[in-house]
Amino acid sequence: MTNLLEEKMNRQITLAARPEGFPVPEDFKLVETPIPEPGEGEVLSRTLFMSVDPYMRGRMNDRASYAANVQIGDVMVGGTVGEVIASNDPDFEVGDIVQAQIGWQAYGVSKGSNLRKVNPDLAPVSTALGVLGMPGLTAYFGLLEVGQPKEGETVLVTGAAGAVGSIVGQIAKIVGCRVVGVAGSDEKIAHVVDELGFDAAFNYKEVDDYSAELQRQCPDGIDVFFDNVGGAVSDAAFPLMNVRGRISVCGQISQYNLTAPEQGPRMMWYFISQRLTMRGFLVFDFEDQHAEALKQMAVWVNEGRIKYREDIWEGLENAPEAFIDMMRGGNVGKRVVKVAD
Amino acid sequence: MTNLLEEKMNRQITLAARPEGFPVPEDFKLVETPIPEPGEGEVLSRTLFMSVDPYMRGRMNDRASYAANVQIGDVMVGGTVGEVIASNDPDFEVGDIVQAQIGWQAYGVSKGSNLRKVNPDLAPVSTALGVLGMPGLTAYFGLLEVGQPKEGETVLVTGAAGAVGSIVGQIAKIVGCRVVGVAGSDEKIAHVVDELGFDAAFNYKEVDDYSAELQRQCPDGIDVFFDNVGGAVSDAAFPLMNVRGRISVCGQISQYNLTAPEQGPRMMWYFISQRLTMRGFLVFDFEDQHAEALKQMAVWVNEGRIKYREDIWEGLENAPEAFIDMMRGGNVGKRVVKVAD
Repeated sequence: MTNLLEEKMNRQITLAARPEGFPVPEDFKLVETPIPEPGEGEVLSRTLFMSVDPYMRGRMNDRASYAANVQIGDVMVGGTVGEVIASNDPDFEVGDIVQAQIGWQAYGVSKGSNLRKVNPDLAPVSTALGVLGMPGLTAYFGLLEVGQPKEGETVLVTGAAGAVGSIVGQIAKIVGCRVVGVAGSDEKIAHVVDELGFDAAFNYKEVDDYSAELQRQCPDGIDVFFDNVGGAVSDAAFPLMNVRGRISVCGQISQYNLTAPEQGPRMMWYFISQRLTMRGFLVFDFEDQHAEALKQMAVWVNEGRIKYREDIWEGLENAPEAFIDMMRGGNVGKRVVKVAD
Repeated sequence: MTNLLEEKMNRQITLAARPEGFPVPEDFKLVETPIPEPGEGEVLSRTLFMSVDPYMRGRMNDRASYAANVQIGDVMVGGTVGEVIASNDPDFEVGDIVQAQIGWQAYGVSKGSNLRKVNPDLAPVSTALGVLGMPGLTAYFGLLEVGQPKEGETVLVTGAAGAVGSIVGQIAKIVGCRVVGVAGSDEKIAHVVDELGFDAAFNYKEVDDYSAELQRQCPDGIDVFFDNVGGAVSDAAFPLMNVRGRISVCGQISQYNLTAPEQGPRMMWYFISQRLTMRGFLVFDFEDQHAEALKQMAVWVNEGRIKYREDIWEGLENAPEAFIDMMRGGNVGKRVVKVAD
């Protein structure tokens, strides 16, 4: 540990209260604590970028789901990109850039086994939280493994301008599909159609009849439905699925901040008449294939076949607001929080 | 054609009106027509048994679904077991017992390619409409191919005492699963537990809290949910599915007679958190494996490992009532209508 570090304090965002419905700034608390020292086999990293992602909303609830929830007073969970500043693991040297899971804090220790080295020559290091990180892998496996798209098929993507949806649509174009997106602002629609090459897209906030609009934009029906959102748009998509269609359930962001469960039309009949398959997944289900997929994604990014946009907020103290605004759809592309240079 | 036949008339049940909600006897009409003569390559069969099945309700609607609908004035569709009484197909001889698709009528012609010979020494010929026919195959493929049950897993079956559900549970027992059934009468519950060997079952008409009852009967959660029914019991099953659980969607009989679509709680989140797969199917999707599966089913039946009950009504003219009563859950086991000796 250097003298410099001994003089400084760590800054953390902790969970102050469990949200009821949409999170509010008061649900979070900025605290100062001593910078931790790495134990045996551990690595101390200084956070450069922090990720804010929709899944974090689930961790704020009082019930554990597929992963443990955050306890009141605990540091918020999440992925980071940081610089190694002290290491007791021979695989990591001071100065290495690493993708870690230390959450919303300026410094943190990790077991080396929980770190992934990031090559700063490949792309901006922040992309290790986006197109070349968890969201990119989520898009890759959720589309290719779960959705099984084939050339000439129609792929519908909700949350089309988000960190995952924007990549899903572009991989589907590489496969040779017609890609239709749904998003929540005209800026997002312009982005996915004009910059990312989606074939069509619509702003659900400007459309009354989702079914009619989907029929217009998917004249040959829907073969793969990649769902990040759920709710009324999904309701309208099920009846338009083609025979042997696949539904890849990645997220249900429309439901995460509801204070009471929502009802919707039943759609199991469509599964019989159209022989549909719906499968939910987590990116961790494909962990043994992550390294290979990241290589493929890096190739596509470097070839310009996959474009990405980052939506960077500055300052660890602004992470709660960056997160809340993202949950309300404020982001275009991957939202990250820059913590240090 | 024999003189005997020339003297007689055919009797047919035709669709007289499209049902609104539950079918009523007035939706059907008994008509007499000349007995048809088989054309080139065709076979005339005299119906011994007719099948009544839930899927027929969908064919009575004004919209085609996965198969063409029945037009007003047309003979109701359905499987039959009959005796060949005239044949222009060298593969079929007078006296052969055949499983045909001639619908609700006493005589009908079929292409030979649409007939399957039935071995009367193997089992009562009526079973070609049940355990050794379409319902048995539906159970076989819907459980083994779609549900993918493994030894030690818990399988939940709705419509447990019906033609399909009763077989699903027994195949699941052969695989080595814990089998829980849901049905609509105490007689059905006694049948599936005491006679068919289900591990547990409950009468949903006598239970208020489906979730609590399912938790009691499935203490280790649900790995495979074979759904014939849909509606409120299914709603309660989704939250109890185990990680990587499979939902095999075979039928949704609770929904077939609704005059307005029903709403239910959204359950797509469970697909993510538990990584569920839901797949709907039709028995025809597995047509190339039917012959092999029927052989296996016949072995199990002859070994006494699969038991079956037939619920036989007499008289072609009673088919509408037999069908309507079956749609209301009146049957235990496979309901067929005996038309001739």
